[in-house]
Amino acid sequence: MKSIQIAVIGGRTADERSLACAEKVGELIAKNGYQLICGGMGGIMEAACEGAHDAGGIAVGILPGASRDDANSYVAVPVATGIGVARNSIIAHSADAAIAISGRYGTLSEIAFFLQLGKPVVLLHCPWKIDGTLSADSPEQAVMLIEENL
Amino acid sequence: MKSIQIAVIGGRTADERSLACAEKVGELIAKNGYQLICGGMGGIMEAACEGAHDAGGIAVGILPGASRDDANSYVAVPVATGIGVARNSIIAHSADAAIAISGRYGTLSEIAFFLQLGKPVVLLHCPWKIDGTLSADSPEQAVMLIEENL
Amino acid sequence: MKSIQIAVIGGRTADERSLACAEKVGELIAKNGYQLICGGMGGIMEAACEGAHDAGGIAVGILPGASRDDANSYVAVPVATGIGVARNSIIAHSADAAIAISGRYGTLSEIAFFLQLGKPVVLLHCPWKIDGTLSADSPEQAVMLIEENL
Amino acid sequence: MKSIQIAVIGGRTADERSLACAEKVGELIAKNGYQLICGGMGGIMEAACEGAHDAGGIAVGILPGASRDDANSYVAVPVATGIGVARNSIIAHSADAAIAISGRYGTLSEIAFFLQLGKPVVLLHCPWKIDGTLSADSPEQAVMLIEENL
Repeated sequence: MKSIQIAVIGGRTADERSLACAEKVGELIAKNGYQLICGGMGGIMEAACEGAHDAGGIAVGILPGASRDDANSYVAVPVATGIGVARNSIIAHSADAAIAISGRYGTLSEIAFFLQLGKPVVLLHCPWKIDGTLSADSPEQAVMLIEENL
Repeated sequence: MKSIQIAVIGGRTADERSLACAEKVGELIAKNGYQLICGGMGGIMEAACEGAHDAGGIAVGILPGASRDDANSYVAVPVATGIGVARNSIIAHSADAAIAISGRYGTLSEIAFFLQLGKPVVLLHCPWKIDGTLSADSPEQAVMLIEENL
Repeated sequence: MKSIQIAVIGGRTADERSLACAEKVGELIAKNGYQLICGGMGGIMEAACEGAHDAGGIAVGILPGASRDDANSYVAVPVATGIGVARNSIIAHSADAAIAISGRYGTLSEIAFFLQLGKPVVLLHCPWKIDGTLSADSPEQAVMLIEENL
Repeated sequence: MKSIQIAVIGGRTADERSLACAEKVGELIAKNGYQLICGGMGGIMEAACEGAHDAGGIAVGILPGASRDDANSYVAVPVATGIGVARNSIIAHSADAAIAISGRYGTLSEIAFFLQLGKPVVLLHCPWKIDGTLSADSPEQAVMLIEENL
């Protein structure tokens, strides 16, 4: 049976509280037996990868640039796409669901792609209010909401 | 000198009022000497292309599928990308600014890409409220706002 | 009725004879009422666009980078994709057939995509020998072979 | 330190000898501590993934379609891109080198992308003769040539 893939989406810069949430979300994704997929860069993405990595899970990083060297150091499987921000659509196609943490316009484009594809999106510390998304107050609730909606 | 490209983004289905707005926006884009670029399909896209076409302008359609036959009949230059919804990022890279009319999640992903690239976005009859966008009440005001922010 | 699109593919550097051939091919494409589509950059692409432009035709340039400014000055409709060399597959999806002139590995990848999609490819001054392609000795013969195989 | 990624490229259909070679190549890639990256589908890709899987390695599958379900059953990390054959360019950007086995036009486009990016390509039972590639007579020699040219 194929693993379930959960995306964590969020920006390259974030406050401490959001980063701590991302790390916890990554940990829970790994502990529950899912693959973590994300953009593979810094900030929220790196924190989530660190959480998954430290819990023994696999973090997949779908990078915008032409080199795997851009991946943060917790990515186990870096994929250098060379297609820039168009890679956001790849994460939405590949993952079964997404948890969005903090983030700005790049994150918004990923949220929109997941919703367009009819996949569940949970917002955690997100500035956006978007019809069709779910909201969580904690990493635990975010992962639980994802599991209820897969 | 290269032409300015203005994107019209919006969904495949829309109410009559939004379609009429899209047609007028397309007409104004053409009359003011800009190229219209859009997703090339039906609904808002088709109405905008019709407006540009009837005013003697060029409408460019960046299609998600593998065949130019998917383009609406007012597209002068259809481009079949074969990359699916990832083509939304191409429209944002190519155009100088966007006018979003009505629309749902696909439109939201395009709005987000334009904002991520730091390009002006004007909303007209749009359900979204997004920091960083401009709002217009009429096609005339939408095009004027674009021109002021190029 | 939608226009037929003919791609001219070839490298950014080429000898004088190949450049002259590309210009003539572009001219014939425009004179026969087809849209020219190409990578929009220099060398063979620029020469073909110049030929089409001077004959009153429309040259479409599908650019790898994020800015329309990269287009050569004879491109009437530049499309900045931002997806790098992946844009080669877009040209193959959009065009009905291709004429390859000179060129190196980038050109080879485009030839391969056209063949994979079952579309006719004519080689003119090309270093490659590839099963499934047609060979021409002159611009006139190249365009005639394309027309016979559409 | 990031893992080295080796691509195995080849078609969805192949003769028994080529499939056996692909499986052995996959096994050697895994045993030597590299990640295998490929298109994730059947034929040569599946045989290589089986070899890597059975040797305890990780096989990454970059799929053209919109669903991870298209992956062969030996892919440990499926990535559903939704961008069609444009995904060939992603494999070339991500991997450090490629071994091409048998294959037709799709394989040729991937070979061309690797060469365009200046990365080593070893041909094994390949119908193509292309300047700039290396040729091997066995899986062992193919992997050895890759290692000498990384």
